[in-house]
Amino acid sequence: MAIVIIRQDDKIELWKKALLEQQPDLEVYSYQEEHPKEKIEMALVWKHPNGALAHYPNLKLIASSGAGVDFIFEDESAPKNLPITRVVDDMLAKDMSEHVLAVILGHLKNLDRYRINQTKGIWQPVQYHRISDFNVGIMGLGALGKELGTDLVKFGFRVQGWANSKKDIDGINCFVGDAGFSNFLETTQILVCLLPLTDATSGILNRKVFEQLPKGAFVINVARGGHLVDADLLEMLNNDHLSGAGLDVYHQEPLPKEHPFWNHEKIQMTPHYASVSDTNSVVPQILENYDRLQKGSSLLNEVVMDKGY
Amino acid sequence: MAIVIIRQDDKIELWKKALLEQQPDLEVYSYQEEHPKEKIEMALVWKHPNGALAHYPNLKLIASSGAGVDFIFEDESAPKNLPITRVVDDMLAKDMSEHVLAVILGHLKNLDRYRINQTKGIWQPVQYHRISDFNVGIMGLGALGKELGTDLVKFGFRVQGWANSKKDIDGINCFVGDAGFSNFLETTQILVCLLPLTDATSGILNRKVFEQLPKGAFVINVARGGHLVDADLLEMLNNDHLSGAGLDVYHQEPLPKEHPFWNHEKIQMTPHYASVSDTNSVVPQILENYDRLQKGSSLLNEVVMDKGY
Repeated sequence: MAIVIIRQDDKIELWKKALLEQQPDLEVYSYQEEHPKEKIEMALVWKHPNGALAHYPNLKLIASSGAGVDFIFEDESAPKNLPITRVVDDMLAKDMSEHVLAVILGHLKNLDRYRINQTKGIWQPVQYHRISDFNVGIMGLGALGKELGTDLVKFGFRVQGWANSKKDIDGINCFVGDAGFSNFLETTQILVCLLPLTDATSGILNRKVFEQLPKGAFVINVARGGHLVDADLLEMLNNDHLSGAGLDVYHQEPLPKEHPFWNHEKIQMTPHYASVSDTNSVVPQILENYDRLQKGSSLLNEVVMDKGY
Repeated sequence: MAIVIIRQDDKIELWKKALLEQQPDLEVYSYQEEHPKEKIEMALVWKHPNGALAHYPNLKLIASSGAGVDFIFEDESAPKNLPITRVVDDMLAKDMSEHVLAVILGHLKNLDRYRINQTKGIWQPVQYHRISDFNVGIMGLGALGKELGTDLVKFGFRVQGWANSKKDIDGINCFVGDAGFSNFLETTQILVCLLPLTDATSGILNRKVFEQLPKGAFVINVARGGHLVDADLLEMLNNDHLSGAGLDVYHQEPLPKEHPFWNHEKIQMTPHYASVSDTNSVVPQILENYDRLQKGSSLLNEVVMDKGY
């Protein structure tokens, strides 16, 4: 049996090398090279080209090499009824937490505004805010949301979260489901989206939700572009209901040149790089699952199909 | 006896109001209004016009309304041999700490670079760094440096400090005096200047010092413009020895339009607003000193003339 790596960026060789370093006798191929398709039992994928998973008659496992699996569900030609696993990586969660903290503090201290002013030659003090001034509300309290929330509490922020089911995390007030959503929004001044992208959460960052946030709220989306209704965000920034947004993810990436986010001074863009899987730290759980697959034991971080994550 | 407030910004009325709110029978004047000069025993000053302190024959105390007193020493017409006090404000230290943390995290996560890229329509991921990647070195372990260092340790940074005399602060490796300076610099990847401005520290951020930092170091000056040799910073940024700088203070403020810092992409400017005295939190110590002055008791936060701070 063998593994195939399918992804469209320039990281296939990096992954191959990292896998072979930790297990030299592994049989692993790039989907772009000649390879024995009938031997492939595991596909290690990240935003694969649609259709690429349909070539493997003996495929037994689709393993995402990141935290997200939405791109697998979006590929209608992907084999159904196979188990899907995703990566749960402490480093990934920590990196995400540090990125969001940087964006939040930059917002409190107006650093993005000051860089824009500097490019224009404008000297203009702007009243700063303090960590103690704002409630941060985290949508999604999975591995990423929990790490962020815990870190923010440690840094002195007031933190609340919103999740499908009650989560007990020290120092974080947890709102649950549809019933708790309005109360969560009304008391959130900095909203961070860390939800998985599913049918239920697609487009959840929309006008109706923004309107429930207090005036002047700031929105951070580091989950998926599909969570956000772009036009609604623009409207709420332009009418000054929201004070700004920090976005790392977009419906299309790279974001097309003509998209209005590029020139919007209240939108702080990063190029989907808040947190990147570190191959070396992730490879052990990939190899472990490959081993479990061969032994027929239960897999690590297997996606629950009904939930979609 | 009475107090005069001397400062050139628009905050005289704000201070007067705050003082009178906490002590309604206080006799307090703006230096710009008609006032009985011989009654003035305390001058509450911030960057007063040179010469303005020479008009008070019975002046007994010069009280800075901020943490710095360098501007008093720079005024040669200011009365000599009078006690000088400065403000030591927990809020001021906390605000400074949060500002520096925001600048450091923004540097780790390339947020300033991304805003510049955004204005140019450039989508380009840049490898980020982690809190655990760098040593932060703080020059000056007074009230501000101690607060920053303590906070950074709490946030997971490795922190070292450099001071005139050995300081015992949990988790911070302290280098001392001339003997410890080189070792401090060689192991500092993010340098934060929080020194008082004195004859001994003027121009301390110079080429010789920058050269001892490891290649790629980042420099933050939130103390005084006089600490920095501007041309040396530019040289070390342009030859890529330093990766960037975050500046809040300048030799002349506002920074003149033609100054090369404005257009430098590796210099992140803020308009001397990292930390601003909160009048309400500072007024009690001003009033306390006014009371002690009348009673002839020892003053709070009196400047040691030999040290200059």
